[in-house]
Amino acid sequence: MGSLIKSWVESANSAETPFPLNNLPFGRYFDGAVKTPCTAIGDDILDLRAVEKTGLLTVGRGDFFQHAGGVNAFMEAGPETWSAVRAALTKLLSESNFEKREALSACLRPMNETRMAMPFDVSEFTDFYAGRHHATNVGTMFRGAENALPPNWLHIPIGYNGRASSVVVSGSDVRRPWGQLKSPDHDVPAFLPSRRFDFELEMGAVVGMPSDGPISVTEADAAIFGYVLLNDWSARDIQAWEYQPLGPFQAKATATTISPWIVTAEALDPFRVDTPAREFALLDHLKDAGPMLYDIELDVTLSPKNGAPTTVTRTNYREMYYSAAQQLAHHTTSGCPMRTGDLLGSGTISGPEKSARGSMLELSWGGKEPLTLDNGETRAFLEDGDTLTLSGAARGDGFTIGFGPCAGTLLPALNEPYAV
Amino acid sequence: MGSLIKSWVESANSAETPFPLNNLPFGRYFDGAVKTPCTAIGDDILDLRAVEKTGLLTVGRGDFFQHAGGVNAFMEAGPETWSAVRAALTKLLSESNFEKREALSACLRPMNETRMAMPFDVSEFTDFYAGRHHATNVGTMFRGAENALPPNWLHIPIGYNGRASSVVVSGSDVRRPWGQLKSPDHDVPAFLPSRRFDFELEMGAVVGMPSDGPISVTEADAAIFGYVLLNDWSARDIQAWEYQPLGPFQAKATATTISPWIVTAEALDPFRVDTPAREFALLDHLKDAGPMLYDIELDVTLSPKNGAPTTVTRTNYREMYYSAAQQLAHHTTSGCPMRTGDLLGSGTISGPEKSARGSMLELSWGGKEPLTLDNGETRAFLEDGDTLTLSGAARGDGFTIGFGPCAGTLLPALNEPYAV
Repeated sequence: MGSLIKSWVESANSAETPFPLNNLPFGRYFDGAVKTPCTAIGDDILDLRAVEKTGLLTVGRGDFFQHAGGVNAFMEAGPETWSAVRAALTKLLSESNFEKREALSACLRPMNETRMAMPFDVSEFTDFYAGRHHATNVGTMFRGAENALPPNWLHIPIGYNGRASSVVVSGSDVRRPWGQLKSPDHDVPAFLPSRRFDFELEMGAVVGMPSDGPISVTEADAAIFGYVLLNDWSARDIQAWEYQPLGPFQAKATATTISPWIVTAEALDPFRVDTPAREFALLDHLKDAGPMLYDIELDVTLSPKNGAPTTVTRTNYREMYYSAAQQLAHHTTSGCPMRTGDLLGSGTISGPEKSARGSMLELSWGGKEPLTLDNGETRAFLEDGDTLTLSGAARGDGFTIGFGPCAGTLLPALNEPYAV
Repeated sequence: MGSLIKSWVESANSAETPFPLNNLPFGRYFDGAVKTPCTAIGDDILDLRAVEKTGLLTVGRGDFFQHAGGVNAFMEAGPETWSAVRAALTKLLSESNFEKREALSACLRPMNETRMAMPFDVSEFTDFYAGRHHATNVGTMFRGAENALPPNWLHIPIGYNGRASSVVVSGSDVRRPWGQLKSPDHDVPAFLPSRRFDFELEMGAVVGMPSDGPISVTEADAAIFGYVLLNDWSARDIQAWEYQPLGPFQAKATATTISPWIVTAEALDPFRVDTPAREFALLDHLKDAGPMLYDIELDVTLSPKNGAPTTVTRTNYREMYYSAAQQLAHHTTSGCPMRTGDLLGSGTISGPEKSARGSMLELSWGGKEPLTLDNGETRAFLEDGDTLTLSGAARGDGFTIGFGPCAGTLLPALNEPYAV
């Protein structure tokens, strides 16, 4: 697991900060109206555009971060550049670097005074369904325990294309959507605000290296720049009516919230773990090629409008049946070109226990067993004003790698979605 | 329908050219390696970057077409600019314009010596399933005539998100994909080249104006810049195994071919027609708000490697149950943001007759009734070396509006998709 790498930025040396020098995630903050690439160190962000301007960061072409699209340009440069920039930043911020502290200090800003932007430009968004406990729970509710998993599920990481335009950064409000719904006791559908609006706890893998044909699991693992927390907001009632035969569409298009920071695969490397045991061997092109999941503790809190947060889920990314590398390899089998900035949602991450379920659908068992919050309120699905916050932590020896919060507040539906 | 607008470019005055002055589609050609915005007039293309440089095209900001992304920038400028540029080009190229012929002639290039690029940058790609004959045919094959249409089909334009990175321009070869397949007589799937590779005849609507929340059908119609021909290549055997429960994924990700020209909604305006009669009224937000389909004759030819083309399908875009405006309006119901350059596939356009079916799946009835080509060969699905060419024509009084061919040749699968 390694141990804490000490920094001259004192707040980065605590065992609890999500941003020790071991982390060095990438994101963008708003410098005025300008999305500006940055990293996080302790309680501060480090403006990478400013660092480049000091002349102290000359790796690669040395001007990646001068533009809003800089994080994408940096990702496209490939793994050698990722490592070189990480090594350079580690050196600049390490406790033993006495020389450059003054110039670098001028590039720091207090994180709590900073507004974060989307950490990168999302090219396309794909969402998977690769958590076995989640798929089993949902399948049991809809098809019974005998037929819980579809026949393909243990052979192929099931996924569908989502909507990149609806991906937003933590802190963005989410408006309860209208949609076409049909209740079982009506013959025809109606157009109404969703009544079964939900969260889904996921991780997102960010593709760094583009590809133009089938790539192996090993190549796919190397193409992934890093990971974000991801909340795949879902309107269950819209989904139930629309999803046959071509899958979820508007049910998943209102918003998908991600954390403000991409934690690099390199930072997470000490936390690699294997996928779970399998009852069917995967086909060769999907076989595990080393530990490609990560031991990341995950939790979700629900904060009602006027109340303290209740932790509703505690689980771990290692519960997934397929790694992001396997998902990405599968994504390319057809020859599908992948691009820098493609985002792959893991699928909902539920653990085996009831308290480890990653969605309200599972936690309230389809709404039949409402959850009681710490303030005494109950929840079958989300209510207006609820704030959902996803957190993640990989815990090393005396240090923690975090992602920053992945939070969003549910606003009430529009009274009337169309101008009259 | 209007009548032919005569141009001083003589070849544009024939009743048969797809590119009379009435058309003025938008696309990009390769000027060396540079994607350069252009329009088509008779047998020529007109380089719009060059026209802007002459100072003769000063509408809007006057420099839309100086960059490869110019068609997208122009689309984003909105309907007033679209009309103004169209009016300016019509004036410059009209027979009555004697003054500027020399300067403009220097901007013309013979189309048959020109290589076309993607006409615009695709932001995201959505594919619908909005042709009733197609949905009925496919449903009958898979679920029987009694349950052919899913319960939602007559109430909602069913769609799914496709993969923008796989959209290619006419003339691009398409490589037969590998994929996970399971035959009914095997217990487990295998990884093999697709054996049931197919085309789908569609139209694509190109979103010009972005939106950030629900928009009405009327607003959606006004947001559509124009239309392309679209071949949604489909691996039926990959789809059969993967599509439950979240819809098609790798089956549709190999390639989607579009025509080199976007024909504007304004050029197609004289050909507007109503959607067909409905047995269920649509909900208010999806109701027809005027004629928003188009009378466009469509056909598909299949050219085997060593043989003459056989016309395998003749149909019409007016066969659709939902217009692109209705699809786009539905797409925004959840609040899903739409962006300039979003591409919406209509769904396969089949007519009521057997000869009007828009895919091999329907033409060969799931492979059971192979088609006989003019050279005596038979086809259940596509074979390596087959070239598929989609054509479209809106026929006015003494003129024709066309899209240029939408063609692609199927290459054999890779012998071994992974380096060993």
